[in-house]
Amino acid sequence: MQGVLNIPAELEGVQGVLAEAFPGVIEIFERQLVSDLPPVDEMCRYIERYRGKMLRPTLVLLCGIASRDEHGAMIESGRSESLCSRAHQVCGAVCEMVHMATLVHDDVLDEAEIRRRGQTLNMLHGNETSVILGDYLIASAYELCSSLDSPVPSRIVGNASAVMCTGELLQLHHRNNHSLDEATYLEILDRKTAALIGAACELGALCTMGFDQREHPVVQALLSYGKAMGIAFQIQDDVLDLMGSEEQVGKSVGKDLEKGKLTYPLIHHLSQADGEQTLRSIELVRLAEGHDRSGVPELIEAIRGTGSIEATQSLAASYVEKAKGALIELPESPGRRMLELMADAVIRRSY
Amino acid sequence: MQGVLNIPAELEGVQGVLAEAFPGVIEIFERQLVSDLPPVDEMCRYIERYRGKMLRPTLVLLCGIASRDEHGAMIESGRSESLCSRAHQVCGAVCEMVHMATLVHDDVLDEAEIRRRGQTLNMLHGNETSVILGDYLIASAYELCSSLDSPVPSRIVGNASAVMCTGELLQLHHRNNHSLDEATYLEILDRKTAALIGAACELGALCTMGFDQREHPVVQALLSYGKAMGIAFQIQDDVLDLMGSEEQVGKSVGKDLEKGKLTYPLIHHLSQADGEQTLRSIELVRLAEGHDRSGVPELIEAIRGTGSIEATQSLAASYVEKAKGALIELPESPGRRMLELMADAVIRRSY
Repeated sequence: MQGVLNIPAELEGVQGVLAEAFPGVIEIFERQLVSDLPPVDEMCRYIERYRGKMLRPTLVLLCGIASRDEHGAMIESGRSESLCSRAHQVCGAVCEMVHMATLVHDDVLDEAEIRRRGQTLNMLHGNETSVILGDYLIASAYELCSSLDSPVPSRIVGNASAVMCTGELLQLHHRNNHSLDEATYLEILDRKTAALIGAACELGALCTMGFDQREHPVVQALLSYGKAMGIAFQIQDDVLDLMGSEEQVGKSVGKDLEKGKLTYPLIHHLSQADGEQTLRSIELVRLAEGHDRSGVPELIEAIRGTGSIEATQSLAASYVEKAKGALIELPESPGRRMLELMADAVIRRSY
Repeated sequence: MQGVLNIPAELEGVQGVLAEAFPGVIEIFERQLVSDLPPVDEMCRYIERYRGKMLRPTLVLLCGIASRDEHGAMIESGRSESLCSRAHQVCGAVCEMVHMATLVHDDVLDEAEIRRRGQTLNMLHGNETSVILGDYLIASAYELCSSLDSPVPSRIVGNASAVMCTGELLQLHHRNNHSLDEATYLEILDRKTAALIGAACELGALCTMGFDQREHPVVQALLSYGKAMGIAFQIQDDVLDLMGSEEQVGKSVGKDLEKGKLTYPLIHHLSQADGEQTLRSIELVRLAEGHDRSGVPELIEAIRGTGSIEATQSLAASYVEKAKGALIELPESPGRRMLELMADAVIRRSY
C-alpha cells in the first residue's frame, strides 16, 4: 500500500518501524512454506509473487503500533525496537497466507489467467494442483497461527476464514441475479473481504494489548476500522474490475461481469435507469456473461450516464469516513495518522 | 466402522461408552456448521450424509479411553460417564470435518458423481460451490478446534492438514507416472491418509492425558498405531477402487486408474510382470486414463496373474500388525482390545 501513500515527514518514524518489522514477516511467511518435497516447494516459491500490496500485514503492524498510547512517544524518540513483536509478525504472515489461499482458489473459480502480471498457478499447473495448493496455504496459515501461545488468534483467524467462505457462497448463490440489491451486495462484501481485514486489525491490537482484551474499546475500534476499510477496499476493487485495464490493474479484469457477479456500479445503474435502458443494460450484461465483451463499452457508458460511478465512489468514501471515524477511540499518535492516510489511499488506488 | 466389527461380549462396556459419547460428537459437528444464510445451511445439511464410517471420531474417543490405565476398571464397573470429555468430542468432530472437507475437494478433483450412494455436491451445485464449501468446512474445523483452551490441538490439526495436502500434491506430481515405486506410493499414503488418522489418535490420547504430554510413550504409541492403521486403511481403499463395484463401495470407483494414480496392486504387478506383459498392461492403463474402461477386466486379470492382489493384502496386513504392535506400550484394557479389533477390521471391509 505504501506506494500510493504520500507520507508526510512527521510519519517517517512509523514508516521506519514498519520497514524494520517487514523482513521478519516475510521470513516467517517463507519459512512456514518451505517443503521437503521439491515440487511443492517450487510452487510455493512461484506463488510468493502473488504477494502484492501486503495490506493485511501492514494493518496488523500498524494497528499494533497505534493501539498503545506510549507508542507515539516511543516512535518520536526513535525507540522503535519493541513496537512490533514476533506475535505481530506471525499474525501478519498468517493473514497474508489466508488471503493468498483465497487468491489461488479465486483464480481457479474465475478461470483467471493473469495475476500480478504473471500467469496464474491454475494456468501453469491445472485446477487440481491449484485447489490443493490453496488448501495447503490455508492449513499452513493455521499451523503458523497456532504456534502462538494463545488459542485466541486461531479462533479469530478460523472464524474470519469461515465467514469469508460464507460471503463467497452467498455471492455464488446470487450469480446472474440481475436484481441483486445494495443490502445483499454489502453483506457479501462484509463477509468476503471485511472479515479478514477486520481480523488483521483486531489481531494487531491484541498482540499489543494482550489476547484477553477483545472487548477493549481500542480493540473494538480497530476492528470496526478494519471492517469499514475492507468494504471500501472491495468497492474500489469492483470498480477496477469493471473499468480498469489488465495492464494497469495487473490481473485479469472484467471477470465480475463474465462470472455474473453484480457489483455496485451496475446495481446502482439498474436501480436508476428507466425501463428501456434497464432492459438494454441487462441484455448487455447477459452478453458479457456469455463471454462476449463487445457490449461492455456501451454498458460502461450507460453506467456513467446514470451517475453510478460517482455514486459508487461516494459509497466507498462513506466507508472510508466510517473507518476514520472509528479511530477517534484511539489516542492521537503517528500510528493513528498513518491508519487515516491508508484509509484515504484505499479508494485512490488504481491497482 | 462398528458395522464390520464382531464385538465380543467383554467389549460391550466400551461399546456403551462410545454409544454414549457419539451423539455429543454429532451435535458439536452440526452446531458448528449452522449458518444464518439459508443456502449455506442447506448445503451443510446435504453433505452431512457424507459422514460414513466415522473412523476418525471413533479413534479419538477410543484412544482417549485406551490411554489411561484405570479406564479399563471404570468401564468394567460401569462408571463410564467421565471417560469421554467435551474435548474428546470436539476433537472427534474436528477430525471428521477436516476429513469431510477433503472428500468435498477430492470429488471436485476426481469429477466424482457418487458419494455415499447419493449425488456429489459438485454434481448438484458445481465445482465452484464445492471448492468454497470445502474451504468453509476446513475453516469451521479450525474454528471449532481453537475453541479448546490450548493451542496444541490446533497445532496438530493444522500440521496434519498441511501434510495431507503435500501428500495430494505429491500424488498429482506423479500422475501418469507408470514407473512409480513402492517407496513413493507409501510416502503418498503416509501423508495423505495416515497423517490425519494419526492426529486423531494422538488427540484422543492428549485429551485424556493433558496437552503437554505429546512426548509420553503412550501418546507416541497411539500416534504410531494411527499412522500404521491409516496406511492399511488407504491400501484397502485403493484395492476397493480398483476391484470393487460402485454398488458395494457406495461411491464412484475406478477413479484412480482414470486419474492416472498408480496404486499398489498395479505397482507390484508392473514390477513383477515380464517385458511383454508390462507393455500390454501399460497400454491398458493408458486406455483407462483416456476414460476407456474396456480394458479394465483384462488388466485386473493380469494383476491377479502376478499375485499382486495377495501381495497387496499382505502389505496391508503388515501395517495392521505394525499398528497392533504399537499398542504394547499401553496397559491391557477393553479400549486397547477394541483398537486391535478395529485394526483387523480395516482390511476386511468391503466399503
